[in-house]
Amino acid sequence: MGGKLKAAVLGATGMVGQMFIRLLEENPWFKVEAVAASERSAGKRYYEAVRGGGFFGGFSEETMNLEVQPLNPKALKDVEVVFSALPSDIAYKTEEEFAKEGFIVLSNASSHRMDPDVPILNPEVNWEHISLIDEQRRKRKWDGAIVTNPNCTTAVLTLSLKPIFDRFGLKRCIVSTMQAVSGAGYPGVASLDIIDNVIPFISQEEEKVQRETLKMMGSPGKPASFKVSASCHRVQTVDGHLEAVFVETEEKTDPESVVEAMTKFTSEPQKLKLPSAPNPPIVVRFEDNRPQPRLDRMAGGGMAVVVGRVRRDEAFDCVKYVVLGHNLIRGAAGCSILNAELLKAKNYL
Amino acid sequence: MGGKLKAAVLGATGMVGQMFIRLLEENPWFKVEAVAASERSAGKRYYEAVRGGGFFGGFSEETMNLEVQPLNPKALKDVEVVFSALPSDIAYKTEEEFAKEGFIVLSNASSHRMDPDVPILNPEVNWEHISLIDEQRRKRKWDGAIVTNPNCTTAVLTLSLKPIFDRFGLKRCIVSTMQAVSGAGYPGVASLDIIDNVIPFISQEEEKVQRETLKMMGSPGKPASFKVSASCHRVQTVDGHLEAVFVETEEKTDPESVVEAMTKFTSEPQKLKLPSAPNPPIVVRFEDNRPQPRLDRMAGGGMAVVVGRVRRDEAFDCVKYVVLGHNLIRGAAGCSILNAELLKAKNYL
Amino acid sequence: MGGKLKAAVLGATGMVGQMFIRLLEENPWFKVEAVAASERSAGKRYYEAVRGGGFFGGFSEETMNLEVQPLNPKALKDVEVVFSALPSDIAYKTEEEFAKEGFIVLSNASSHRMDPDVPILNPEVNWEHISLIDEQRRKRKWDGAIVTNPNCTTAVLTLSLKPIFDRFGLKRCIVSTMQAVSGAGYPGVASLDIIDNVIPFISQEEEKVQRETLKMMGSPGKPASFKVSASCHRVQTVDGHLEAVFVETEEKTDPESVVEAMTKFTSEPQKLKLPSAPNPPIVVRFEDNRPQPRLDRMAGGGMAVVVGRVRRDEAFDCVKYVVLGHNLIRGAAGCSILNAELLKAKNYL
Amino acid sequence: MGGKLKAAVLGATGMVGQMFIRLLEENPWFKVEAVAASERSAGKRYYEAVRGGGFFGGFSEETMNLEVQPLNPKALKDVEVVFSALPSDIAYKTEEEFAKEGFIVLSNASSHRMDPDVPILNPEVNWEHISLIDEQRRKRKWDGAIVTNPNCTTAVLTLSLKPIFDRFGLKRCIVSTMQAVSGAGYPGVASLDIIDNVIPFISQEEEKVQRETLKMMGSPGKPASFKVSASCHRVQTVDGHLEAVFVETEEKTDPESVVEAMTKFTSEPQKLKLPSAPNPPIVVRFEDNRPQPRLDRMAGGGMAVVVGRVRRDEAFDCVKYVVLGHNLIRGAAGCSILNAELLKAKNYL
Repeated sequence: MGGKLKAAVLGATGMVGQMFIRLLEENPWFKVEAVAASERSAGKRYYEAVRGGGFFGGFSEETMNLEVQPLNPKALKDVEVVFSALPSDIAYKTEEEFAKEGFIVLSNASSHRMDPDVPILNPEVNWEHISLIDEQRRKRKWDGAIVTNPNCTTAVLTLSLKPIFDRFGLKRCIVSTMQAVSGAGYPGVASLDIIDNVIPFISQEEEKVQRETLKMMGSPGKPASFKVSASCHRVQTVDGHLEAVFVETEEKTDPESVVEAMTKFTSEPQKLKLPSAPNPPIVVRFEDNRPQPRLDRMAGGGMAVVVGRVRRDEAFDCVKYVVLGHNLIRGAAGCSILNAELLKAKNYL
Repeated sequence: MGGKLKAAVLGATGMVGQMFIRLLEENPWFKVEAVAASERSAGKRYYEAVRGGGFFGGFSEETMNLEVQPLNPKALKDVEVVFSALPSDIAYKTEEEFAKEGFIVLSNASSHRMDPDVPILNPEVNWEHISLIDEQRRKRKWDGAIVTNPNCTTAVLTLSLKPIFDRFGLKRCIVSTMQAVSGAGYPGVASLDIIDNVIPFISQEEEKVQRETLKMMGSPGKPASFKVSASCHRVQTVDGHLEAVFVETEEKTDPESVVEAMTKFTSEPQKLKLPSAPNPPIVVRFEDNRPQPRLDRMAGGGMAVVVGRVRRDEAFDCVKYVVLGHNLIRGAAGCSILNAELLKAKNYL
Repeated sequence: MGGKLKAAVLGATGMVGQMFIRLLEENPWFKVEAVAASERSAGKRYYEAVRGGGFFGGFSEETMNLEVQPLNPKALKDVEVVFSALPSDIAYKTEEEFAKEGFIVLSNASSHRMDPDVPILNPEVNWEHISLIDEQRRKRKWDGAIVTNPNCTTAVLTLSLKPIFDRFGLKRCIVSTMQAVSGAGYPGVASLDIIDNVIPFISQEEEKVQRETLKMMGSPGKPASFKVSASCHRVQTVDGHLEAVFVETEEKTDPESVVEAMTKFTSEPQKLKLPSAPNPPIVVRFEDNRPQPRLDRMAGGGMAVVVGRVRRDEAFDCVKYVVLGHNLIRGAAGCSILNAELLKAKNYL
Repeated sequence: MGGKLKAAVLGATGMVGQMFIRLLEENPWFKVEAVAASERSAGKRYYEAVRGGGFFGGFSEETMNLEVQPLNPKALKDVEVVFSALPSDIAYKTEEEFAKEGFIVLSNASSHRMDPDVPILNPEVNWEHISLIDEQRRKRKWDGAIVTNPNCTTAVLTLSLKPIFDRFGLKRCIVSTMQAVSGAGYPGVASLDIIDNVIPFISQEEEKVQRETLKMMGSPGKPASFKVSASCHRVQTVDGHLEAVFVETEEKTDPESVVEAMTKFTSEPQKLKLPSAPNPPIVVRFEDNRPQPRLDRMAGGGMAVVVGRVRRDEAFDCVKYVVLGHNLIRGAAGCSILNAELLKAKNYL
């Protein structure tokens, strides 16, 4: 394999940007060679641009001393792979500029997710969608590519749904979420809004969950046809999105069969032994009161989802369960990195 | 009407017991003349039996100096109405003893809720179920009665469902809850279990919600036939249960019609102008981010439920919304008191 | 007394501004006739300028429909008293403009607090400092006046210290605070900074506590000469600043004597029966585990401070205790209103 | 050195007991060969006795399958070192029984701390106190020994005070704490007591801090003569005790000199390169807003304390600062293990 691939992180100073760097510092295939951010930070050393050593502490000396670059493909010439944690408003145009210059951009932004020729990749769920890259290149006449990962809530949901979908088919899925404040970035949610409180609304979240899930679980270019409905709520946890899921399957099933399908489930990333692929990708717990965000969010290094309370659902005469995943890792930076690993294993990188 | 009716509170030292007393101290129809509790507290002054003036502060001198009585109908001879906040294990037998002695017991305990001849009353929802009292007396050959109020989550849910049920009929209802820690009593939930965390399990809660809802929304003796499925979770709020509700109706409807039905909804307690009846019983809010537990739980003195985010549901092609109610007031002591007021207005007291 | 005095609130849309209005709506001496705020809000109706009915809910129809005025004395011609909740940077100049135009400005801003001819008034502590108004008018050649209330932490501290200071004299005072997030305004403290966390720093807070305490507890124009040292910390409470206080007195004393001095303490506002004056101003509790912010912050309508755990201090061979006060009421808007009532009773208004 | 020493943990199922095991599983010198607990757990497998895999997760298969032993020295024959996380009431007698049988007991319980011949060891602070072991053996005529570690708050405080004490001498020390809920064990603090709240009282804590600090910072058998006063409060953090410290030194000093003394400070455990000794033992941070419990409690693997905001104190005309340490690691299990390592290095084990 030779040396590590040189990686850049766009939007490196935000919460997801920092998580990219934290995870990449331990990644055997990629190495952060450049950090880029908006005008305000460009030109500073990375340690100056992040507050107090950053949200997660512990960046290497080398990273800390990187000079923050502007968001310009010319400035990142010798980079081999680009991770984007840009805010959506900036991401749209910037990511296209990088793709035009031949860069493969692994993006956490929502801007391009619904473009028909851009895959939303959650590797265990729809690794075959990488074929959209070829279509994208043909259509857009560029050598680079934009590959997105799903919204954090969708990433967790779709991974838990995949074995059910494969084995029994899906007719309807209702999901009600209890999401962590880190999902809103920093400063994000005001403490006055969340102490002794729940906020029953996250802007655009339900729409994202609904349409991204269908795009991802269909074949490339053709969304799945089951129905998805989400109700999204912010609760007082730091990290880890918890989701109550009610499913109606095509073929009749029961909790035991669903547990079995989940427990046995592995997918391409596990087969390829991608470095960030959790094994198992779905951890099923049998205690009454799990998963819990504080106890379970780091399962599989934050890349696994933890399912619990798989039980009969009385409304659909089918199955309901609770699933938890780390919103900043499986739901954001970690998923993008796993996507990059998949692309490398499939010779796109 | 003459003077106030003399009331006793059983289980007066617990969290719900104290809420009974706090609410009764301001009630124009009832007056706390006796408090009763388990062996451990019996014989003490009430102020000695509750810690530091109690959870809610502010009991009257007179109440504070009441001697805690044993849980024995003989000890409460001149009492005219009995409110029970007993734990379920003790409630079953004790409440029967009181009913046998001719007392009407308004109970917050779950022990007798599913007895076919005991009503679970949430007055705006099913005030007609008071007719079960007559059946109960015939069958059990007693002059007293046991009248229960629903589980806290059910109380909030059924009140919000009632106008939909009446106007459009119900086929299926899925509810995912975010419940306050006060619902578990004191000491209840350990702080280590709830800081930066959610507990996705509340013992027996889902079963209660499912079966109580159907019993209440059917006719006396005949449960409703729609399907209810609940997933119950504990979050870090002090008071106020928040519930995400997804409904499928018999007759096709839309969010505007549901909002209209809810907004116009009143019921017997409002007609009778019962002192604890909130008016309106359902407050509909139109901001994106309401209801919120800390801001909205005291709507209607804690007796109203607050509904928000009424919107199209994509899974049922129907309607979803969020509803909040105060678990200790509408969901417990306040509901029992409203039941007593109803009984008085209907000449059972 | 005739009708109520016409009041204006500057900075009416912020957290303290809203608290001014909430308190004034129930005040028997003042009536909000005008609300003023920065350019961004001026011209809107008040209900449009505050989010979702405001932080505290429940403003009157009349108030909700007030048109927000610009921060200009000409715009508020017929107003008789001005309350200022302006941010410090704007307050300095704006408050002077109002005073020049003859208005008496009761200010919560820190801008003018340390001006030698401006009183920092916490009425029970130093009502005699109103004499500085006369000096201020002479010196500044204006008919109006600027009267400030202390920083929230100082307001609570000085009220608790006053009976000790009067009876035994003070040599040294050390205070370590646990302050509520509402003290930082809205959005203020990010939820990511306070969940499962404490922030051991509040900008400028320690300096304010130290110098304001001495200015207030001295005679007008001559600060007290004891020593004060503060360490200020933000904890996860909504409202209510808790302070651990260690004192060394001039004259030897003991916990019992300090409790007696506190319990018996009343001052000018109580004598004058000012409507917002709590009686007693200091509530002493004897339980081990009080005061607690959630249980005790509303003592005396939020205007009293609650003291507990008065006990021997081993370092000073003197006394230590814990004191709690509502930072938005006694520590901000409520104190300004009490100041206005004092001014009215003393014929300055 | 040969193989690892065989260790037993008494009280292995509680929160501190589990932390002992978690830390020992990664310790190069000791290996958990036995777990012991009260009657209720004895005879079960360890995984049955701890709930859901335990508070911290991740025990080894081997540990999980250990049979829980009774608290009896006979049952633990081949063990070479005993760690005790017993509750104080049981610890007194049980630990003596083990010492009589020749075991060296490293105890986290408070029962024997104030015995004149039992050291309270916090190795960087007073490693020389191991000499009390010899006295203890002479006096008590046993071959074993009881060695305690300080109360969690004291452990953090004394480590931060040590370089000041050594360099400048101490006259007075005032400490006001903000302590995590894990310090109260499980279930410990009720969630209703801590949400939107602070509890300004921890039973016996202030007394422990005051007397243990003096015993430890004196010479063996002769407590130090400076004065210590503590005010202890429980706040809503999971782990990590934060302490605001005000000191008066014998010799005049200033913040810069104190920072220098702290920064340069190392002690015997660092010299001996004990495996659990953090290096540096005191991390000094210079940002305004550090240390923070969530961000800093794991410094040095939870064995370092983090000091910040070293600044002039106006009351003592000396120095004040804030210090944070992990209450379950440096303040409990980790300190006991470091004590065991010290004993081994000094040939007591």
